[in-house]
Amino acid sequence: MAVNLHIPSDSQIFPVAGVRIGIAAAGIRKPDHNDLTVFSLSENSQVAGVFTRNRFSAAPVQVSQAHLSADTDIRALVVNTGNANAGTGDAGMQAARRTCTELARLLNIRPQQVLPFSTGVILEPLPVEQLVDALPQATENMADNSWLAAAHSIMTTDTQPKLTSRQLELGTEMVTITGISKGAGMIRPDMATMLGFLATDAGLSADLLKDTIRHVTEHSFNRITVDGDTSTNDSFILIATGQSKVQIQSVADPRYAPLLEALTASAQDLAQKIVRDAEGATKFITIKVSQAHNTTEALRVAYTVAHSPLVKTAFFASDPNLGRILCAIGYADIPELDVNAVRLWLGDVLVATRGQRHPDYTEADGQRVMQEPEITVHIELGQGDASETVWTSDLSHDYVTINAEYRT
Amino acid sequence: MAVNLHIPSDSQIFPVAGVRIGIAAAGIRKPDHNDLTVFSLSENSQVAGVFTRNRFSAAPVQVSQAHLSADTDIRALVVNTGNANAGTGDAGMQAARRTCTELARLLNIRPQQVLPFSTGVILEPLPVEQLVDALPQATENMADNSWLAAAHSIMTTDTQPKLTSRQLELGTEMVTITGISKGAGMIRPDMATMLGFLATDAGLSADLLKDTIRHVTEHSFNRITVDGDTSTNDSFILIATGQSKVQIQSVADPRYAPLLEALTASAQDLAQKIVRDAEGATKFITIKVSQAHNTTEALRVAYTVAHSPLVKTAFFASDPNLGRILCAIGYADIPELDVNAVRLWLGDVLVATRGQRHPDYTEADGQRVMQEPEITVHIELGQGDASETVWTSDLSHDYVTINAEYRT
Repeated sequence: MAVNLHIPSDSQIFPVAGVRIGIAAAGIRKPDHNDLTVFSLSENSQVAGVFTRNRFSAAPVQVSQAHLSADTDIRALVVNTGNANAGTGDAGMQAARRTCTELARLLNIRPQQVLPFSTGVILEPLPVEQLVDALPQATENMADNSWLAAAHSIMTTDTQPKLTSRQLELGTEMVTITGISKGAGMIRPDMATMLGFLATDAGLSADLLKDTIRHVTEHSFNRITVDGDTSTNDSFILIATGQSKVQIQSVADPRYAPLLEALTASAQDLAQKIVRDAEGATKFITIKVSQAHNTTEALRVAYTVAHSPLVKTAFFASDPNLGRILCAIGYADIPELDVNAVRLWLGDVLVATRGQRHPDYTEADGQRVMQEPEITVHIELGQGDASETVWTSDLSHDYVTINAEYRT
Repeated sequence: MAVNLHIPSDSQIFPVAGVRIGIAAAGIRKPDHNDLTVFSLSENSQVAGVFTRNRFSAAPVQVSQAHLSADTDIRALVVNTGNANAGTGDAGMQAARRTCTELARLLNIRPQQVLPFSTGVILEPLPVEQLVDALPQATENMADNSWLAAAHSIMTTDTQPKLTSRQLELGTEMVTITGISKGAGMIRPDMATMLGFLATDAGLSADLLKDTIRHVTEHSFNRITVDGDTSTNDSFILIATGQSKVQIQSVADPRYAPLLEALTASAQDLAQKIVRDAEGATKFITIKVSQAHNTTEALRVAYTVAHSPLVKTAFFASDPNLGRILCAIGYADIPELDVNAVRLWLGDVLVATRGQRHPDYTEADGQRVMQEPEITVHIELGQGDASETVWTSDLSHDYVTINAEYRT
């Protein structure tokens, strides 16, 4: 079902020096299915994270946030699928901490050097004994070339593993950027039900890494939406192992800009792959809003259109029922909006101007664009010069089926 | 498909003195199908309206607003289905005005005494000649007992006509309240893709009627949501013909409170019927939020839960996947929310307390409630003493089917 989701071949996946990955089947998601992933990071790695703003944030989110703010010397990540460990109260916190303690013992590090992540069903106790029992299996099969296996083992309703990998030359040195993500439903910014892990062997100072992850997130994971549901568990982690010869301390370093651009492109690839594999998705939709007064306004319009069930079902039907897009723009709560200044484009087709259908627009033109698997909607607000882009999917029968039957 | 939608029998439908209704088939929606409705009001009727806040408000909405503010002596309403006359620019405005002019000519009133309403597809020109040609048929069959026929003739994707009717004694006099509504998708407050027309033969002063419609709307049409889409055409009209002996000038009149209560109940019935007949609905869901700091906060939580596609699909599946409700509460943007103070009830079952599943909760209890066609979710926020209630429906396969195939 995924829309043009490219899975790199083995030769296109570059290990990141300083990152080793172990995988195990803990029986949490289903029997005999890899659902536990451990990342081991070399000493002196820098790690930064961005997490859900959901007030019911999961226990592992809270523990990861605490460990990241208390101790920058993070050495391991542990991820389980099948259970979100969210809405689980004190027992959930204990389970998340126990996971860290047990993994730390196996890796001979401190529990505060471990970040835990969970994804899956909410409001069910985490079967922490099963998880703990499987940790030795994961730590025993650690390897640096297990990225694709890891992309598989963090999946829930994902139909495809999501992986990005690239190398770039910075001066005379090569650096590698490789990462994985998961998530298919309960996706909207700040953040999605998504986990994203992106690693580079470049070295970045702790402060610079924090600035970097903010920039990267705002142009990737915080610009996607499937269904508008911000999950309890969303986490995006950026790791800089510093194992390459590229060491960057400040934005003034000429190597920083190209590195930032490559990290952003990698994160965008991971984020867009989540939308391409969105639950039931048959279309990959780019919503660009330009000529807004500011970013907030541009994003408000983009997300209102992206969340409209009527717009999403029209995309599913390949039906250029474009009045639904105008309608959504109209209720996006932009008080000063002059509807006569709005121009609506579907791909290369100008659909609406001056508050009505463009005289040259034909249903056949609309139909042609709507039948493509990748569609760009461009909304010119005629207000200012801010632009934003959001990526989303359509709303199909399969979305309902998947979410009606998730637990059964 | 409608969920427990009661259609009154003929003997339960009380005409409103001063309101006559004519119906015609203009061929706008489909051939040989009643799609044009005219209300003729007796002299000295008072009329008030509440309209969509969508910036792309339809031409008839703009004309009705202008006529209501320019002239309180409204004498007729005209409603077409099949075309919303929205996103139609100047031509749409001319078509709406032409409709008023032609109806005014037939009824021997001024065009400014006519309110036009349209509902249906957006961004298509209104076939105004067909509409005008059918007006004489409508004005020739005017009758005071055509309320059920009118409820039928304003339908679009509605599967059932929506009608409410009651009589109440005020002192020694009897007053009648009868109304109709339509709407099934593109429904959320401020307002829904809905039209509502409610009439009473009580007399109310112009100012009192304006206060009354605000109160009534806030407890009825502005508390329903199907899909979160605020349409371009939403209108609710309250008519007081004053043809009974009950004439009320001020809120101090002891007959006002019971009349207001009855008008509110009638509007609530019409609004809830829209949800009961929501596109693809298999469940009627009441979301009550209590112990909020204020109304805004209570409504924000209620609508966030009501709009969550994941919550809605869980209702469709009768699956007590209640973590999705907690998750939605968590992203409802209530900054001070103490998740440990939140209590979540499903019907009479206490599901979650202290940020986790209640110890006594069993899946069987949740399942029992979820299988009912009418479900109440009660969220106690533990913050203050404001309460609000919102009504919504589930998200089913049929919702996708109906909206994917609307124009075909």
